[in-house]
Parts: sequence; structure tokens; C-alpha cells
Amino acid sequence: MKNDPSRRKILSMGAGLATLTACTSKQEAPSQVGAALSPYGNRSPHETAKRLPPPADSKTPATGGSRTPLQDSYGTITPSSLHFERHHAGIPDIDPARHELLIHGLVEQPLVYSLEDLKRFPATTRVHFVECSGNGGAEYTAAPGATAQVSHGLASCSEWTGVPVKLLLAEAKLKPEAKWVVAEGGDACKLARSIPLAKLMDDAMIVYAQNGEAIRPEQGYPMRLLLPGWEGNSNVKWVRRLHATAEPAQTTHETAYYTDLMPDGKSRQFSFELETKSVITRPSGGQKLTGGQGDYEITGLAWSGRGKITRVEISLDGGKTWKDAELTQPIHAKAFTRFRMPWSWDGAAVTMQSRASDDTGYTQVSQDELAAARGRNYRYHNNGIKVWYIQSDGSVSHVAQV
Amino acid sequence: MKNDPSRRKILSMGAGLATLTACTSKQEAPSQVGAALSPYGNRSPHETAKRLPPPADSKTPATGGSRTPLQDSYGTITPSSLHFERHHAGIPDIDPARHELLIHGLVEQPLVYSLEDLKRFPATTRVHFVECSGNGGAEYTAAPGATAQVSHGLASCSEWTGVPVKLLLAEAKLKPEAKWVVAEGGDACKLARSIPLAKLMDDAMIVYAQNGEAIRPEQGYPMRLLLPGWEGNSNVKWVRRLHATAEPAQTTHETAYYTDLMPDGKSRQFSFELETKSVITRPSGGQKLTGGQGDYEITGLAWSGRGKITRVEISLDGGKTWKDAELTQPIHAKAFTRFRMPWSWDGAAVTMQSRASDDTGYTQVSQDELAAARGRNYRYHNNGIKVWYIQSDGSVSHVAQV
Repeated sequence: MKNDPSRRKILSMGAGLATLTACTSKQEAPSQVGAALSPYGNRSPHETAKRLPPPADSKTPATGGSRTPLQDSYGTITPSSLHFERHHAGIPDIDPARHELLIHGLVEQPLVYSLEDLKRFPATTRVHFVECSGNGGAEYTAAPGATAQVSHGLASCSEWTGVPVKLLLAEAKLKPEAKWVVAEGGDACKLARSIPLAKLMDDAMIVYAQNGEAIRPEQGYPMRLLLPGWEGNSNVKWVRRLHATAEPAQTTHETAYYTDLMPDGKSRQFSFELETKSVITRPSGGQKLTGGQGDYEITGLAWSGRGKITRVEISLDGGKTWKDAELTQPIHAKAFTRFRMPWSWDGAAVTMQSRASDDTGYTQVSQDELAAARGRNYRYHNNGIKVWYIQSDGSVSHVAQV
Repeated sequence: MKNDPSRRKILSMGAGLATLTACTSKQEAPSQVGAALSPYGNRSPHETAKRLPPPADSKTPATGGSRTPLQDSYGTITPSSLHFERHHAGIPDIDPARHELLIHGLVEQPLVYSLEDLKRFPATTRVHFVECSGNGGAEYTAAPGATAQVSHGLASCSEWTGVPVKLLLAEAKLKPEAKWVVAEGGDACKLARSIPLAKLMDDAMIVYAQNGEAIRPEQGYPMRLLLPGWEGNSNVKWVRRLHATAEPAQTTHETAYYTDLMPDGKSRQFSFELETKSVITRPSGGQKLTGGQGDYEITGLAWSGRGKITRVEISLDGGKTWKDAELTQPIHAKAFTRFRMPWSWDGAAVTMQSRASDDTGYTQVSQDELAAARGRNYRYHNNGIKVWYIQSDGSVSHVAQV
């Protein structure tokens, strides 16, 4: 950074402090006392990052998705106000004092829990991402997402607090023939998914808090099923029922939706796990390096539904050579991991891409390699490498690889 | 939990699914599509947790403090909207495009950085608490805080992102005689504190993001000095100037305020480090165990300005015996650590208290032991053990120990 004039403005010294202050600040300290204390704060009116809802002319604004502005993200936590949304029948208005969770079916002891009941159980707090399996769907096409928000914004990460599902199932005493549990949401379409019992006895939770306060309405208030690392729709929101069964229920959302069409015309079903993925968030599509050549930081997010991110590499030459980025510690399993790499830009056009590896040994591959393995009928679970292109004027755009 | 009738409502089985659903839910799933997607979400209108500002008749609502509702907290992150406040001249309205950080004084190369300049530096993301040194001040008196919010709510914890100060000072090239740096804020009173150079070369940061988005106005938008583990006022908000000096500047806020009056009438100055502290947040003062005898979770928060929390113990018999609580992993240094312990309440009145230890080997002591060591003129840095008293009707209140 030593010879970058855009980074430093040299002052002539010698004057007193007051003079220096006066001559160097574009904005004087205010002379009047500022705004007062408040019960529940808001962000600065100068901040405008927002979720990207569907086009303004949507006739069904309650049944779509809105995306997190990952290009404006910092660290690993997604602000709850910017957590992506994917609703199938809008956000129900639920009175938490009236909401209950029913556990029934192949159990010895059917149970009903209120929110207050759940808070008496031993709780767990963990950081996990949630991602829609449709995230990155456009990357399969000839028009991949022009910004990180469009390409990868159906993923967000929160600190969740709630009760392990295995504690609740232990109370209900599952019958030996119970192998699946159908989770049903409290929205108007009663979205339901059949979940294999093994996942529920592993790290599944009924969460009632997100980022330190009650879970947000868009995320399932007053409670949702959290299946760390599994596709978003199976993390049933506004959850009201866990029904233990011997077989999956073949609900609408595991037959008509959320299956993967293979090259032979058959569909893969119950493909819950989300694969290793990464995206450079700065610089990324739609942004511009305004300072000209000089030092910048390349930063982004990586995550895997199968465990911990162990490595993120960055290529600045079209994938010929790769260099390790630094990973922010500590690394949580099935959570956003922030990666960073210092970069000195020479002002020439450059392609920029990241590839992540997780602790199963898997490393991301290119869109073309992904298509070769899965065919081109796939709609969900795109985890191919995302490439950005930086022009010599500093503007960043996407690169079509298909 | 097996014999707790309040925890389970047994259903008569045999009916079909639809019937069961209908007969067990107080609140039916809605028949109409719910609310639509939105650009920036809000919490449920049913949620009312709020910061506690000074009395409503305050004539100076811009120069006081507001407290985080710790009794309503979950996990370790404080929602930015509920982060405690302590302002000395209100919250300035700062245009980030006009804000600059000046580094000058005993440096070879005075520098001015814009927010965009700072974002080009290698960034760091870390979870840290911020605490006002006046937190717990009332615990020294005969009327300790009646709720966790009143007693301990001048502390909050966030994921912060920004630039290590040592990188900025390296660019400015400190002169050998520089031993302190005076940090000045952009509020109307230009709050300033002298910071020993060693801290700035250690883990100090200029942070511009909090919990995944731009730092909130109440916390110093667009940038604040973060001194992990050091008393809140030294983490200068809206920071606009770092002035390298040979000696401390003896500013108003390190002479007239924020010093500790000792028994001999002398004041201790520059007592920056915050001591090990803990508080049980549920059950806590003002709450009530409404379910009668049975299983509950005892949970709370512990933190130390000196390092990592290594242990939290809970006593249910007035401090005679102690039992280890579980600590939520991973434990961050100088950050809130959530502790938890299952508890089966027999319905009798009980005193409940927590004591935390950190990795320096220090363990919290009682208010009386604290007073014996420091005298009773102390106003800041109270880290004595907090005791709650649960009556047989389940109501929780504070216990005066002095």
C-alpha cells in the first residue's frame, strides 16, 4: 500500500491540533446534541442494503423468494432483517401464546408443547446457514446471476437457539417401526416434508430464537424445524406438527417440487444435503473498484451442508493457478465461513473465482464439470464455481460459463 | 420430566390425522395466504423486549444510557436493535461519504482514511462484548438491580468486522516517542480517551460492521474504535481522530469521569480492563416460573475482559455448594459465553447465583468480598456475584447482599 496515492492524503504538519482537525475533516463534529436513546434501534438511513424480492409486477408477492444482499455482507452472521425468504403461502401471523407443537403418530405418548414448555428443555445454541436448494439455479443457464445476491442470495446464516428434536422424541417414546417424521408448518399451505429419523436424532432442533431474539416471522415465528446443512424447505417454518411414520408421506413438496431430474428422465428424491459452495462477495458483480490500481481485499463466503469448510482457494487467472485464502476462525460446521485474501490490483482485466473444500474431502468443481456429472435437467443444488470478471475500469460482472 | 403433568398433555389416539390436528391446536393453520416478502424485515409485533432508557421524565434523553433486556436474551449475540447505549451528547447523524479518520501526532506520515479506504485493508471478524464500566453500579448499593436488565444490561455482544488498528498505525509510521493514542469521537462533545499504544498494537480494531451489516448509529456509525475487553467509553464511537502522543491527554472522560475512588481518597485512573462477570438471565428478577414444580433450565451469560470463560458454577443453596454449568461452544475470548444447567424445581423457595472463572485463573467473588477489597466509594467495575431469590410461588426477585 506504500505507493498508493488513493489510499493516503498527506498533510502538512506543524499547525496545532484544532487546525489540523478543522482542515482534514469533510464533516465537522456536530455542535448540537444528537438523537436520543431508543427502545429498539434501527440502522442508519444512509444504509440501503435490501433483500431482493421478485419483480415488482409479481401477482403473488407472498409465495416467492427474496434474496440476501451478500455483496453487502460482513463477517458470517446475516442480519435477521436481511435473511433470505422463501414462502409458499406467505407469512402467517401467529400468536405465540396460542401456538403448539404436536408430536404424534408412531409414538407411545403423543404430546403437545407450548412455546413456554419448550423453553424449559435444555437448549442448544449453534451457528448454521439455511439455504434454499434452488439457490444458484440460474447458474445452470446461459444467464447466471449478475450479482452475488442473485446468484447466491438464497442462503443466510444465523445463531439459532432451541431444543434438540431428539429430546422431544425421547419424551414421546417412538415405536420401533417409526423411521420417518413428517413435519408440518403452520402456514396456509401447511407445507410438509418427510424427514428421515436419523437426522432428527442427530443435530435437528426446534428453534425459537435467531441472533439473540425471538425468531423472525419470515423464518418461522414462533418456532421452526432446523435441519443443519439440509435444504431450506425441509427446515419447516411455523412448525406445528411432527408426525412419526414408517414411510415418507410423499407430500406435494417432496414429489411435485424439490426433486432432481436426472439425465435418464428419473427424479432423485430426498436429496436433502447441501453441497460445498462459495462465492466472492467483494469485489463481485455490480460493484466497481473505484480507487484504481492498488491494494484491495478479496473476501467472500463458503459453506457446506456436510461439515466444516477446510480450505478456500482463489484463482485470478481463469483457474490455472490457485492460492489459499485466509479463513476467519473459529470455523463452525454447516455455517458460513468468511474467507479473505489481500490483493494488489495492477489495473488490468482479470477473472476471479473461489473454490471451497470441506472436511469430507470434497472440492467444488466448475459449472461445466457439474453439468457433465448431473446432466442439464437439474434445477436444484447448483454448487458450481462462480466466476467474476473485473474490467480494466474496475467494474465487475458475471461470466457465463455454459 | 417424566412425571411433570404441566409438560405434557396426553391425547387419546385413534382418530385420523386431520382430526388429531383439529383437536390439538389452539390456533388453526390460516386459511388465507399470509404476508408478503419484504426488503428489510421486522420482528413479530408480539415481541416487546426493549432497551430500558432512563425515566420518561428525563430532560436529557440524549445523554444517558439504555440497557439490553438480558432476561429476554438467547444465545450469545445481542440483536443490534437491543445493544445497550451510553451517549454523552446524543447520536450524531453522520453521512458516511463525508466521514474521515485522521491519524496524526507523533507519526512520520499523517493520514486520512475514508470508509471506502478502510474497506480495502485486510479485515478481521471477531465476536466481542462491549460493556459500560458503570454496569452493575447499583449492586454496590442497598438496592441492587431488580432485573438482569437493570443490574447487568449495560453489556452486549456482537460480531464485529473492521481493520486492526496496528495496520493503520504501521502505515502512519509511529515515532519512537509515541506511547499513547488519543481517540476522539464525532459526537457533539468530541468524547476522547487516551489509549496505551500496546492495546492498539494488540487486538484493537476500527470496526465498520456489526452483526453482518453496517455498524448501527448508536454504536458509532460509520466507524468506532473497538478495544476488546476494555470499558465501553474507551471504545470511542463515531471515531474521527487517532492522535499519537507521548503522554495521556487527561481528557474530561479520564479525569472527571471513569476513575475509581479508592478508600484512601485517591483515584485509580485508566482502569480499562473489565473483570470476569456472570448473571443468570432465566430465571431472573421480574420473571416467574409459571409451571409450578418440575424441570426447568437455568441459563445465563458470563464474560471476561481478560480472556476466555473457562468455568461457570451455579449454587442453589446460598453459596454453600456449587455445580458446573455447561458452556456453549465454541468459547470466544472477551465475548459473551452462554451457560446452562438443567434444574428440577421442588417448588420450595431457593436462592440462585452464578460465579464465572476465566483463563487467567480469576473467579468472581461476592459483593461483600468485593467491597472488603475495594472499599465502598467505588462506582465502576462491579463484578460481584449476582443472587436471585425464587419464592415458592415461582416469582423471582433480587437479593440485597450489602
